[in-house]
Amino acid sequence: MSEKTPSNPILESMARRASIRVYTEEEPTREVIETIVHAGQRAPFAAQLGSLLLKRDRTRNAFGAPLLFTVCVDVHRMERIMELRGWGREMCDLSTLLLGIQDAAYMAQNMVQAAESLGLGSCFLGAAPYAAARIVEEYGLPPRVFPLVQLAMGYPGEAPPPRPRYPIEFSLFEDRYPVFEPATIERAAEAMDEGYLAQDYYRALDARIALGEEREETYTYDNYSWTEHISRKLGQWGRDPSELHDALAACGFDLLGQGNGSGSDERNRLRVR
Amino acid sequence: MSEKTPSNPILESMARRASIRVYTEEEPTREVIETIVHAGQRAPFAAQLGSLLLKRDRTRNAFGAPLLFTVCVDVHRMERIMELRGWGREMCDLSTLLLGIQDAAYMAQNMVQAAESLGLGSCFLGAAPYAAARIVEEYGLPPRVFPLVQLAMGYPGEAPPPRPRYPIEFSLFEDRYPVFEPATIERAAEAMDEGYLAQDYYRALDARIALGEEREETYTYDNYSWTEHISRKLGQWGRDPSELHDALAACGFDLLGQGNGSGSDERNRLRVR
Repeated sequence: MSEKTPSNPILESMARRASIRVYTEEEPTREVIETIVHAGQRAPFAAQLGSLLLKRDRTRNAFGAPLLFTVCVDVHRMERIMELRGWGREMCDLSTLLLGIQDAAYMAQNMVQAAESLGLGSCFLGAAPYAAARIVEEYGLPPRVFPLVQLAMGYPGEAPPPRPRYPIEFSLFEDRYPVFEPATIERAAEAMDEGYLAQDYYRALDARIALGEEREETYTYDNYSWTEHISRKLGQWGRDPSELHDALAACGFDLLGQGNGSGSDERNRLRVR
Repeated sequence: MSEKTPSNPILESMARRASIRVYTEEEPTREVIETIVHAGQRAPFAAQLGSLLLKRDRTRNAFGAPLLFTVCVDVHRMERIMELRGWGREMCDLSTLLLGIQDAAYMAQNMVQAAESLGLGSCFLGAAPYAAARIVEEYGLPPRVFPLVQLAMGYPGEAPPPRPRYPIEFSLFEDRYPVFEPATIERAAEAMDEGYLAQDYYRALDARIALGEEREETYTYDNYSWTEHISRKLGQWGRDPSELHDALAACGFDLLGQGNGSGSDERNRLRVR
């Protein structure tokens, strides 16, 4: 980086940040928790369709973290407000979820950085949508609340280095999206793979994803790295969209349906075209 | 807030932040832009499915802002990497988008706070998905890149107060999601409405949403506030899910389809059930 590159505590905190999977025994106080949640609520784009479930049970929380937040897309509250005002929802669930996922995600990311600023670490857990039915049961969620992602949080018991990222020329495109030469793709892949190998990331986590029967394993932790890991995810997992459609249905959302259940003609049109 | 409430520059910056819709003539330098993008890339949950388009054209950018970022869910890059590694994508688009929207949103929110730390302001613009076909054309996007949201950015020419938010007891639920009494709903609605009215927010923006013909307008800017505004959005807009399904299709995504186009049986099952 050039010497003119600006810096300040916020940028340094973002630059340093890495996911934490080991937590100390220290319990965050109620004040610390509420401060982090308040900071989350300050995020913009606020139709305020995000809400938070909290579990403080180390015996069950991921990584034995003192805090486990489940970040939800919460349309229930707004619909209750609308009901009191004499309005029914007409917006289809696809549009509503697109708004709500953003509200919830901006909130969650503010919480991550607010936590860092108070000396806490965190780790996102992406499986919540696939466990929606169980989470609905566990927290007694009303319809129209969808668990988007979980966030384990507490005081860090490890100090991992920041993880590799794509080169900026692979992420920021002015005026035109480029046509990538294979060499550009390879350079970006290499930056990621060499970065993770240098940190021995996957070996330390023992996080190699198994291959299906039709493929032979040729990787060890000496060469298994980020592009192989993500390729195995996107190349093997989540084939069946009905998993998520069913999870959404368990929370009262229907990506095919229209607002207020009034759109049966449109629904049919979408299904048969 | 109690005196024990922790504070620091990051929390203060989040607490102060409001959307900026007036920008000065000052041009952010290349270093400032790259610093903000680097901070965005540091966000966690990084399958790195987010990328950024940038336009520096005040004559066309929203609010005449010097910078307009279009934050994209970018599956193209990862699929090019997978191709070089001999992998085809199998994950269905619904699961892929759920990952990618989060990657993109966490990146965007880091950019918002990084910008604040450097004295820049910003404003999210939510219409990008509905303008996907035009954005594909304008930036020459390849298939598998979806414009999620736009972010106008520059040095602020106004200093608006932070906007109201729900009370924390309406946003954070420990162990069980509550059954809300009408009084609780009303209190949350009141906090929002009185807060926005005290700032004369909607009058200053002249942002009242028109009512459909079947409803008579009874509001003026003396009483039009947040719950009425959001009710008019969710109660009138975005009825037709095919708008977004078509926008996604224009970017090569299909929420009904399976990975690799191989799932025609599954697709049919979803459509007819």
